[in-house]
Amino acid sequence: MKALAFVFLLTGSVFAQRVAPPAITYPPQLTAELKQLQQAALSSDYAYQELAHLTNNIGPRLAGSPQANWAAQYVADELRKLGLEVRLEKVTVPHWVRGEETAALVEYPGMAPDTTQKVILTALGGSVATPAEGLTAEVVVVNNYDELNALGRDKVAGKIVLFNVKFDKDLAATGHAGQAYGQAVIYRGGGASAAARLGALASLVRSVGGADYRLPHTGGMRYAPDAPRIPTGAVTAEDADTLALLTQQGRVRMHLLLTPQTLPDVESYNVVADLKGTEHPEQVVIVSGHLDSWDLGTGAIDDGAGVVVAMEAAQLVKKLGLHPRRTIRVIAWMNEEFGVSGGLAYAAAHKADIGNHFAAIETDSGAGHPVGFTVAAPASNLPVLRPAGQVLQSSGAGIIQPTEESETDIHPLLELGVPCLSPIQDGRFYFNYHHTAADTLDKVVPRELQENAAVVAVMAYTLANLPQDLERPAPRTPQR
Amino acid sequence: MKALAFVFLLTGSVFAQRVAPPAITYPPQLTAELKQLQQAALSSDYAYQELAHLTNNIGPRLAGSPQANWAAQYVADELRKLGLEVRLEKVTVPHWVRGEETAALVEYPGMAPDTTQKVILTALGGSVATPAEGLTAEVVVVNNYDELNALGRDKVAGKIVLFNVKFDKDLAATGHAGQAYGQAVIYRGGGASAAARLGALASLVRSVGGADYRLPHTGGMRYAPDAPRIPTGAVTAEDADTLALLTQQGRVRMHLLLTPQTLPDVESYNVVADLKGTEHPEQVVIVSGHLDSWDLGTGAIDDGAGVVVAMEAAQLVKKLGLHPRRTIRVIAWMNEEFGVSGGLAYAAAHKADIGNHFAAIETDSGAGHPVGFTVAAPASNLPVLRPAGQVLQSSGAGIIQPTEESETDIHPLLELGVPCLSPIQDGRFYFNYHHTAADTLDKVVPRELQENAAVVAVMAYTLANLPQDLERPAPRTPQR
Repeated sequence: MKALAFVFLLTGSVFAQRVAPPAITYPPQLTAELKQLQQAALSSDYAYQELAHLTNNIGPRLAGSPQANWAAQYVADELRKLGLEVRLEKVTVPHWVRGEETAALVEYPGMAPDTTQKVILTALGGSVATPAEGLTAEVVVVNNYDELNALGRDKVAGKIVLFNVKFDKDLAATGHAGQAYGQAVIYRGGGASAAARLGALASLVRSVGGADYRLPHTGGMRYAPDAPRIPTGAVTAEDADTLALLTQQGRVRMHLLLTPQTLPDVESYNVVADLKGTEHPEQVVIVSGHLDSWDLGTGAIDDGAGVVVAMEAAQLVKKLGLHPRRTIRVIAWMNEEFGVSGGLAYAAAHKADIGNHFAAIETDSGAGHPVGFTVAAPASNLPVLRPAGQVLQSSGAGIIQPTEESETDIHPLLELGVPCLSPIQDGRFYFNYHHTAADTLDKVVPRELQENAAVVAVMAYTLANLPQDLERPAPRTPQR
Repeated sequence: MKALAFVFLLTGSVFAQRVAPPAITYPPQLTAELKQLQQAALSSDYAYQELAHLTNNIGPRLAGSPQANWAAQYVADELRKLGLEVRLEKVTVPHWVRGEETAALVEYPGMAPDTTQKVILTALGGSVATPAEGLTAEVVVVNNYDELNALGRDKVAGKIVLFNVKFDKDLAATGHAGQAYGQAVIYRGGGASAAARLGALASLVRSVGGADYRLPHTGGMRYAPDAPRIPTGAVTAEDADTLALLTQQGRVRMHLLLTPQTLPDVESYNVVADLKGTEHPEQVVIVSGHLDSWDLGTGAIDDGAGVVVAMEAAQLVKKLGLHPRRTIRVIAWMNEEFGVSGGLAYAAAHKADIGNHFAAIETDSGAGHPVGFTVAAPASNLPVLRPAGQVLQSSGAGIIQPTEESETDIHPLLELGVPCLSPIQDGRFYFNYHHTAADTLDKVVPRELQENAAVVAVMAYTLANLPQDLERPAPRTPQR
C-alpha cells in the first residue's frame, strides 16, 4: 500500500513524464510459480554440479581453445538432456595462445653480483611476443598517462614502461568494486600503445585486482592502429611495489620474455537452447552467461557461474513442469573476454527478429550474494518488475534498479533496443580472483550460487510470463 | 599488589616447589632505560628500512645461494656501522637449487580430447629431480598415512601419491596457527619416504598453509634412509581439491617435471655482532633471527623481520647511548630452513663457553602484533622477567609465559641449558604467506614491526642488565 501511495504522489508532479505507471500485481498463479522456482533453486545442487564439471573436468576455456569448444558441446548436450531445443550458432573467434612468460631484474642498486631477481608477471591477452631470446631494457615507472607524457620520448624510448596504478581495494571493499576496476583497467587496455607511441620496447601494468598473494591478473588489451605493437603484461602488485622502490634508488634493468602467439581464427559457437513458450513461442527471454574464460584459472566466477545459473533456470522450469508463455532461451556466449565475438555475432544474426527479443538477462560478475537486479530499460518498467522483486526479497534480493549499461555479451542487444537485466551481486571479493589462476571452483560458495540461480530463474520466468509488454530502450549507436 | 598476593598464596601450597620466587623490582634507572628503548623503537624506521633492503634489494636468500652470502656481508657491514664487533662465523650449508617445475593432467574423466590441464605446484626443498623428460603416472589421493597404508603396495606402486591434508584455517584464525601447521607439516616432511616405501614414483602434498590464491607453499622435507628417494612437491590447495574430485570419478594421470639439483655444499656464515657489556662482557645475551629464506619469495616475514628487529635492538641501544652490563650479541643465523646449520654450528663452536650464554632470543614467527614472550626455562624465572613485561604492557605485550621448546636456531642452545625466549605474535595470517612467493615486504605492517622491535629491544636489554642470574633449563639430548 505504501508503494501505491508513493507512486500516486509522483504521478501528480511535474516529473510525471519520468514516472513509472502504477504498480501492478501478478496473477496469483504466476506469483505461486515464482515462489516455487525460488524455493527449488535454493535447494538444488544442479548448478554447482555443472560448475564443478566446467571448472574441474573441462578446465580453462579460453576462446579458440579446444576446451572452449568442448565446453560448448558439453553444455549443448546437458541442455538437450533437459529437453530444450539446442543449436550451436557459429562464432568466429580469435585464437591467442599464451607461451612462456618470465622476467627477471638483471641490474638494480644493491644487487648481489652475478645474480638476477625473478619478477612474476603474465602476458595480457592479445600481446605480441618479445624476440625469441627476450629483451632487456631499463624500467621506468609511471603512475598515470600524465607522468608518462611528461617523461616524453627522450626518457621512454628503448625502455620498459610500468604503469603502477593501484587497484583501490578500499573502494572495492566498500561496495564499489566496479568503480575500482574501471579506474585501473584503462591502463591495461591502452597502456601498451601509449608507451609505444613514445618508443617504449614493452609495457607492463600493475595487476588490476585486489589479490596480495603475488598473483598476476591477466585481461584483454587493444593495440591502437597508430602505434607500434609492443609486448605487454601484468606484474603482480608486489613486483610493482618492488620496481617502484628500486627505480627511485637508481637504474633498474629487466629481462623480459613473452612468447604468446596469435594463431588463425577458429570456428566456435554460442550455445542457444530454447524452452519454448506456450503462447508466444516467437518471443524470447534470454538468460545467459559466457562460457569462455581466461586461460590461467578455470573460470568459476568468470563466468562459469553465469552459465550454470542460466542452465539451472531452465532445469528448474522443466523439473517443476512449468510452462512459460514466452520462450526462455538459455545462451552460453562464446568469447566475451577476447572481443565479445558471441554477443556481436548473435545480435547480427538475429537483428531481423530483434522485435521478438522481449528481454535479456546476463550474469557476469561472479556468484556473490545477489541483492536484486539492474534493468537497462526505461524506468517505466520498474513497477512492472517490482512484484518479482517482492518474491526475491525473501532471500534479500528485492532491489530493482535502473542502469544505463548492461553486461558485455548482451550489450549489442541493448543497442538494438532490447531491455537488459543483470543480478546485482556482492562484488567485494570478485576482483581478488578475477582473471587469475585462482578463479577456481572453491571461490564459489554453494549457497550463494543457489541464491543467484534463484534470482535468475525467478526473473527469467517473470519476463517470460509478464501480462504486458516492457517499454524498450531507444536503440543506440555502438561505441566500438 | 594483586600479583604479589597471588604469589604468596601459592607459596604456601603443596606446589611450593613449582612456584616462582616473589616478584622483584628493577633498579629505577633500568626501568627508565627500558621505557626509553620502547619509545624509541616505536618511532624508528631503521628496522623497516633494513627489511626493505633485504627483501627488495637482495631478494630471496636461500641458503647456499649467492644472495644469502651477499646478505650476510650486508648485515655484517650494517652492524659494523653501528659500532659493533662483528665477525662472520663459518657455516657449511647445503646448496639445493630449484629448477623447472611443471605438471599437467594428461588423462581424467570428461577431459577435452588432445588437451592437458595445468597443475600448479612447487618442489619441496631437498627434493630429487624427476627424469629429464618428466614422469607420467596415475594419481592416488590419500588423506593420511592410514589411508596410504590401507591402499598398500598393490595400489601405490608406480603411482604419484597426493597427501591431501587440509591446513585447518579455522584453527589458525582463532589463534592456533602453530597447531594447524604442525598437524599438516608432518606429511611435507615424511610423505615422500612413506609413499616411496610402497613403490610410489613421486609424492605430492597439499600445500601447508592458508592461502587460497592458487599459491604453492614450499618447505623442507627429509628422506628416510630406508626408502628410495622420489621427487616431491606441494600442489596448491585448489589443485589438491581438483585432484581429489577427479580421482573420485575415475583414472587421473599426471605428467610431472621437477628438475631441482643438489650442488656441493657451500661455505656460508652466521653474522655474529657484539655490543660489549660493561660489567660482564664475557656473558652474552643473544638477539637473533635467521637470514636465509626460501627462494620463492623475498623472506620478509620468514625471517627478514626477525633479523631486522634484532639489528634494531642494537641500533637503539647505541643510539640512546645505553651501556648494557652484559654483552648483547646480534646473530643473523644462516640456514634455518634447510637443516638449522647455523644454529648447530654455533652451539658446537661455543659449547665450551656455554655457561657464559646468559639467554637467547629469536624472532621467527613473522612480524604480527606481539603480546609478550615465551620463556623456555624454569618457571622460577618468570617473576624476574615480569617487570619487563610491565613495561611492555603499555604496547599490549606484557605476557610472560613458560614454554617447553624454543624457536629453531636457538634450540641447540636450549639443549645445552641456555634460557631461550621468543616474542608471542599474532600469527593468524602468517601461514597464508609462509614459504610462498608472496612472502614479501608488503606483508609486514610497519607499525607492527616497530612493536616487535620494541619488545625485543626491551627484553634483550633487560636480560643484559638483570641484577640476578636466571635459573637455567636442564640440558637435554637433541632429538635429531
